[in-house]
Amino acid sequence: MEYKFSDRVQKLKPSAIREIFKYAADPSVVSLSAGNPAPEAFPVEEITEISGKVFKERPIDALQYSVTEGYSPLREQVKTYMKKNHNVGRDFDNILITSGAQQVMDLASKSLLNEGDVVICETPSFIGSLNTFRSYNARLRGVPMESDGMNMEELEVALKEEPRAKFIYTIPNFQNPSGITMSWEKRKRLYALAKKYGVLILEDNPYGDLRFYGEHIEAVKSLDEDGIVIYAGTFSKVISPGMRVGYAIAPQALLQKMIVCKQGEDVHTNIWSQIICSEFLKNYDFSSHLQKLKEIYLKKSAIATGALDKYLAPEITYNPIKGGLFLWCTLPDNIDMTDFCKQAVLRKVCVVPGNAFLTDENDPCQSFRINFSTPTDQQLLKGIQILGSLADDIIRK
Amino acid sequence: MEYKFSDRVQKLKPSAIREIFKYAADPSVVSLSAGNPAPEAFPVEEITEISGKVFKERPIDALQYSVTEGYSPLREQVKTYMKKNHNVGRDFDNILITSGAQQVMDLASKSLLNEGDVVICETPSFIGSLNTFRSYNARLRGVPMESDGMNMEELEVALKEEPRAKFIYTIPNFQNPSGITMSWEKRKRLYALAKKYGVLILEDNPYGDLRFYGEHIEAVKSLDEDGIVIYAGTFSKVISPGMRVGYAIAPQALLQKMIVCKQGEDVHTNIWSQIICSEFLKNYDFSSHLQKLKEIYLKKSAIATGALDKYLAPEITYNPIKGGLFLWCTLPDNIDMTDFCKQAVLRKVCVVPGNAFLTDENDPCQSFRINFSTPTDQQLLKGIQILGSLADDIIRK
Repeated sequence: MEYKFSDRVQKLKPSAIREIFKYAADPSVVSLSAGNPAPEAFPVEEITEISGKVFKERPIDALQYSVTEGYSPLREQVKTYMKKNHNVGRDFDNILITSGAQQVMDLASKSLLNEGDVVICETPSFIGSLNTFRSYNARLRGVPMESDGMNMEELEVALKEEPRAKFIYTIPNFQNPSGITMSWEKRKRLYALAKKYGVLILEDNPYGDLRFYGEHIEAVKSLDEDGIVIYAGTFSKVISPGMRVGYAIAPQALLQKMIVCKQGEDVHTNIWSQIICSEFLKNYDFSSHLQKLKEIYLKKSAIATGALDKYLAPEITYNPIKGGLFLWCTLPDNIDMTDFCKQAVLRKVCVVPGNAFLTDENDPCQSFRINFSTPTDQQLLKGIQILGSLADDIIRK
Repeated sequence: MEYKFSDRVQKLKPSAIREIFKYAADPSVVSLSAGNPAPEAFPVEEITEISGKVFKERPIDALQYSVTEGYSPLREQVKTYMKKNHNVGRDFDNILITSGAQQVMDLASKSLLNEGDVVICETPSFIGSLNTFRSYNARLRGVPMESDGMNMEELEVALKEEPRAKFIYTIPNFQNPSGITMSWEKRKRLYALAKKYGVLILEDNPYGDLRFYGEHIEAVKSLDEDGIVIYAGTFSKVISPGMRVGYAIAPQALLQKMIVCKQGEDVHTNIWSQIICSEFLKNYDFSSHLQKLKEIYLKKSAIATGALDKYLAPEITYNPIKGGLFLWCTLPDNIDMTDFCKQAVLRKVCVVPGNAFLTDENDPCQSFRINFSTPTDQQLLKGIQILGSLADDIIRK
């Protein structure tokens, strides 16, 4: 039988990164292409302890149906934490626990996007979110990134030219893939522009807690006196991604639609993992846990940048990083980026070609993404050494 | 700010059942309105054991990102089990693990439905699925239920009259809410009609394993030589609903689109719970576990029907049941059903007004749904006694 798919999925294809993962699955290949947290960053002992206790004391709570909005104690804890520590959340806001932050992108899209509506996004940006927007037949309008975040003049041009723009998608901290953090000045400007043009902001902040250098910059959502920002948070990078626990903080009227959509998608988020997150926040020292994570990633990033400096500089440059999990490397103009990435695979090291992260992957791109959280220190060093020898042969030949 | 929602969610409202749950949350109210498995049906000891072992032996497997398709061992186990025990699955089929069976309805809808497309469904039917179809702006075309399943003449009329029908949604076993099971003859007819008119079938089978009387009838999917059936299974009713683990068995070409949609929705299903289900199937006696569940529900259903016979008959009738979790009760024609349900709430017992399950909830309906799995035996008896005294006052006055 020939299936008649919906218009929205006709052109959808599996993420380019996933295609690369096929090579990366070969154990002889050094994968710098993933985005997994370091296994040593998981609080295994604590989760084991909590889980054992829950099954001893109240197993039914962890196994029975629960409510779509999420586990009440966890909702309260996140609400309090985000308000107190980050000034995120006003009286008109509420919180929804989701099956990972990815579901926030999905629920926001489902609630807001008609086919043909526009999402304004940073370019490059996280391919997973871009694909979610595409899956609702939205058109993507990219705004180029600068070293301190989106180009604000280009953003205003986009807002003027796109009357069907519904929201601006941003990852303000240690952006995936570029590693760039938006300055406080630009955050204020972004907020003012969104307000001026009556467009919402979808703020995705998976890496905000993983800053290992410099001063923390508050979320765009901390500015939100007008109810125009949907904030997406997650426990994936700070507790465990396999548990799939994220959250949205958004004005109640918006959240209400997202809750109804979630009901129809998966009823509620796995309740065991919600309880684990809640008990972890309650009974363990979250800030010293974060400190441990920062040390792990600082060390790994130093190994990566040290090797980049030694083996790839000066021909291949990278964006300076102060947190997160990724490095964005750029080749000289005369080198074919796609070919470089293919050659790298042949030499058994996998990176992600940068065009995968563009709003139109046929646009020119000289960059590739390196992840430093997943590989071991040895793999990281070896992988970048191989890239160096490739640079010797292709660039410095 | 006034939010401009997408067309698809403009009219969406929270499920009527959830509104009723607000009353049911009052501890002095006997709730016969839920659909939760009995807490004593959960294999708590086994899950505790498995979980402990996993965290001892391979914690990272249970905490790290996983693949969208689902945990490979679980996919293989379900595939083998369904093929061997139920002749479900052909060479062209594949399997996707989902975040509960609800997600199968969502992914099938997202992959197949354009706005204005038609879903043909049983009426009454499961409100959760109907709301999912509605959330993609599909139009619902109801086909009345008979004691052995959908009226097949009406189904053919619907297929003739609805050129935009994309799939037929059916719950063939112990349907929620009616409790009705489709006969084997009708399953064959349903399949033949779907094939004739080039329309897919979405078969939702959460209760098939919970038969406590009579002969098992094979799934519609067991007939599927043409690749026209999407089968939705779940561990919610046989292991735990809070874990949110379901699955789709469908032709690879269809499943491929559903996988891309799932990537954008939640990346993958909670991996800990997938491992729990896999290890449970591998290391414990699943069929004797099912036997235990059937005994629990047989006993509870006997208490319910005994009380219905004693306190509500002959004025209020119910569909005979051979499995599942629900009883569908029908009031005499001269009684206002909605008023009866409201009066019941005032007397502190909650049932679900039947019109909540109709394709158009303004259509006439004399029925209400009783759930017998969630309340304790005492609550069940007490609740039906109260309904009996209400019947005395309203019907037999």
